[in-house]
Amino acid sequence: MEALDYARAQREQFLAELRTFLSIPSVSTQAQHQPDVVGAAGWLRDQLLAAGFPEAQVMPTQKHPVVYAEWLAAGRTAPTVLIYGHYDVQPPDPLDEWRTPPFEPTLVGDDIFARGAADDKGQLYAHVKAVQSFHQTVGTPPVNIKCIFEGEEEIGSPSLAPFIREHRELLAADVAVISDSHILGKELPSIVYGLRGLAYVEVEVSGPAHDLHSGIYGGAVHNPINALCAMIASLHDEHGRITIPGFYDRVRELEPEERAELSRVPFDRAAWLEQTGAPTDWGEPDYTIVERTTARPTLDVNGMWGGYVEPGAKTVLPGTAHAKISMRLVPDQDPAEISRLISAHLKAIAPATVRVEVQELHQGKWAIVRRDSVWMQAACKAYAAAFGREPVFERGGGSIPVVATFQDVLGIETILMGFGLPDDNLHAPNEKFHLPNFYRGIETAIHFLERLGSPT
Amino acid sequence: MEALDYARAQREQFLAELRTFLSIPSVSTQAQHQPDVVGAAGWLRDQLLAAGFPEAQVMPTQKHPVVYAEWLAAGRTAPTVLIYGHYDVQPPDPLDEWRTPPFEPTLVGDDIFARGAADDKGQLYAHVKAVQSFHQTVGTPPVNIKCIFEGEEEIGSPSLAPFIREHRELLAADVAVISDSHILGKELPSIVYGLRGLAYVEVEVSGPAHDLHSGIYGGAVHNPINALCAMIASLHDEHGRITIPGFYDRVRELEPEERAELSRVPFDRAAWLEQTGAPTDWGEPDYTIVERTTARPTLDVNGMWGGYVEPGAKTVLPGTAHAKISMRLVPDQDPAEISRLISAHLKAIAPATVRVEVQELHQGKWAIVRRDSVWMQAACKAYAAAFGREPVFERGGGSIPVVATFQDVLGIETILMGFGLPDDNLHAPNEKFHLPNFYRGIETAIHFLERLGSPT
Repeated sequence: MEALDYARAQREQFLAELRTFLSIPSVSTQAQHQPDVVGAAGWLRDQLLAAGFPEAQVMPTQKHPVVYAEWLAAGRTAPTVLIYGHYDVQPPDPLDEWRTPPFEPTLVGDDIFARGAADDKGQLYAHVKAVQSFHQTVGTPPVNIKCIFEGEEEIGSPSLAPFIREHRELLAADVAVISDSHILGKELPSIVYGLRGLAYVEVEVSGPAHDLHSGIYGGAVHNPINALCAMIASLHDEHGRITIPGFYDRVRELEPEERAELSRVPFDRAAWLEQTGAPTDWGEPDYTIVERTTARPTLDVNGMWGGYVEPGAKTVLPGTAHAKISMRLVPDQDPAEISRLISAHLKAIAPATVRVEVQELHQGKWAIVRRDSVWMQAACKAYAAAFGREPVFERGGGSIPVVATFQDVLGIETILMGFGLPDDNLHAPNEKFHLPNFYRGIETAIHFLERLGSPT
Repeated sequence: MEALDYARAQREQFLAELRTFLSIPSVSTQAQHQPDVVGAAGWLRDQLLAAGFPEAQVMPTQKHPVVYAEWLAAGRTAPTVLIYGHYDVQPPDPLDEWRTPPFEPTLVGDDIFARGAADDKGQLYAHVKAVQSFHQTVGTPPVNIKCIFEGEEEIGSPSLAPFIREHRELLAADVAVISDSHILGKELPSIVYGLRGLAYVEVEVSGPAHDLHSGIYGGAVHNPINALCAMIASLHDEHGRITIPGFYDRVRELEPEERAELSRVPFDRAAWLEQTGAPTDWGEPDYTIVERTTARPTLDVNGMWGGYVEPGAKTVLPGTAHAKISMRLVPDQDPAEISRLISAHLKAIAPATVRVEVQELHQGKWAIVRRDSVWMQAACKAYAAAFGREPVFERGGGSIPVVATFQDVLGIETILMGFGLPDDNLHAPNEKFHLPNFYRGIETAIHFLERLGSPT
């Protein structure tokens, strides 16, 4: 296929462009990076035009813009594929744990290290280059293409669902494809058919009106950090089960058939422990590690702070303590309901000696995708062609709430065509993207579009 | 008395000097303030010379210097008083809660606001001005005087005990006096006869080798913050009692006589709650608030941090979590033993899913001073003369470990001649010193020295 030949010949050029993309610190959660987020959007629009899209624009939202492009040259009888990605990235901290600067993309062997390399700039860009490969060879892609690339994924996509609802006609399509997940191994392609949802809250516990001397007041004023620790500790029982009343009420128990399928996902416990560095695994004893991390709900403190945190000793009884707490959710939990449940529970268990405020930071719905659709079959064939091996099905532990939004608003299913690897250090120092996956990702996308354009 | 008249006439000048002293950010725990600590020592030496001391010098230690001065003109038959104070201060953070800059001393009504105003620069300086008042009037003070002013009190005085042991002959005296505590009210002088000790540790809990994505690993990797919260929560039972095995073994129970004496300390619960801002009091139900804060051991988290602590949401499963934990100790607890007990206990209760490291930051011994000595009687008379009211006896909740060192190494008792007030915001934003107490403090010191110099 000419498009494939072109993509192979252009690898060096594609990599050079990706490096430029990765060097833009488009951290969506930090106000000081607002210009970089806007800069990344503009750069991406220019690349879409250069790739052949006749139309591409930066569309404003309440916060960070959406980059939209379309190329509808395949005609009314051809299907329309909606490609989603996000050009924003997580904050790079803790900075001192990066071996190379997070926004100076660095090649080490076959990997490119940079914040956003795998999540999601590198994966998103593979699709842009696939379309370009058709443009530069056969002129137009074999199906109609629409792209929606957002800049708020890492802050919970507050503007995305409203944008999709507002532009449902513009975005009308037959199937969506998202590359924002990983495959099981370099030579082991896989397709994620389930994702967890998310509810994220921030808690403030306050006791005294201001910091106090722990010698003068210690023993008779409840320390907000101690109080918050006790509240957080009580959120799990000794089996790692979450104690918030009602939390499990809507959880759909895994059927034996699905547990059997998930048990076929290759899992190397020793390698997993090595990867995490944890002394041993943890969690609900009745579920496997794969199930606990993909098909069971969880609760994690993502950040906590209070009192004196500089070097040395300070004998302070702090006025406040804070924690960011997120829960991964599974079918059929309702993120809004879970947020309400934890907020009410935290207030209910707070002792009378402190005050508690809970702020609901964001929420995302879980998703389950059919494994037997024509789109899924095309995706399987595309992986098989590019990787030389049929993909296996798995569930993902992370959250891509837009999958639920596409289902609800546009009425379409999403193919999660991941090109990352499990050790890409997403949301952590030393994030990387495996370059052979970048190139095979471009080829997988070419095969996918080609197959959708030639129904058999 | 001429010295008193002089001190009253010089108030404006004394205040101007105190402002200069307070403007030096001599934060002993922060490396960047090392030059300021040294600067404060040099300034203080110059002031001692200016106050009449024939000898005053800055003496190096392993870390921050000691300022030593002596004036032995009263002859061998007169007693020698050793005045201790500290010229270092706590860090000023959280900075944004200060109404005026911490190192720009600001007068508001009768109060001077600055870090170190009451703890301990203002109180220390009252003694220097008392000596100067004798010098400028009758020529020499009525007793022999030695001053030892250290720069490490707020970091646990690591060099002080070795310094005192090394210079035990230089420091030989009949009694020590320290003004680093408070009286009960502006018109309610009191003398602290007991102090709590301290054991301060820092804990690190680590799980994964680095930060992980909470979606990909959450549910099967134990979150170090959650684990640390559970460990900290378990350190108290539901009655506010500390659960570390052996913690109370050496605690001397309060005798009914002493409980009766402590119950005579005026205590206004409503005012105390107003002062702290806490919704209600907390702690061991079998003890009064006064007892809990002065005569019972406690455990407080002074600082805690881990994960993402910036604005916004980040779904990270952090690699480590940290806490600074201090315990106030009472007779006859041994700080070194308590440090060992908590270190061993934290390691014992840590689940196998995480790793724990405990660092012993510092320790200080509690102290109990006799209430019937000639020195204590002279102090009572001095307060009565300066404040117009006999002081009451109380115990203090804070730690002044040097009192135990003076007892052990020099064989002398210490009079805790406090001039602060309970609402001085020590170790907290908006620290202040009540200026009438500064002036009455100088007068109390003059009366005390005068009385010791004229035995009846």
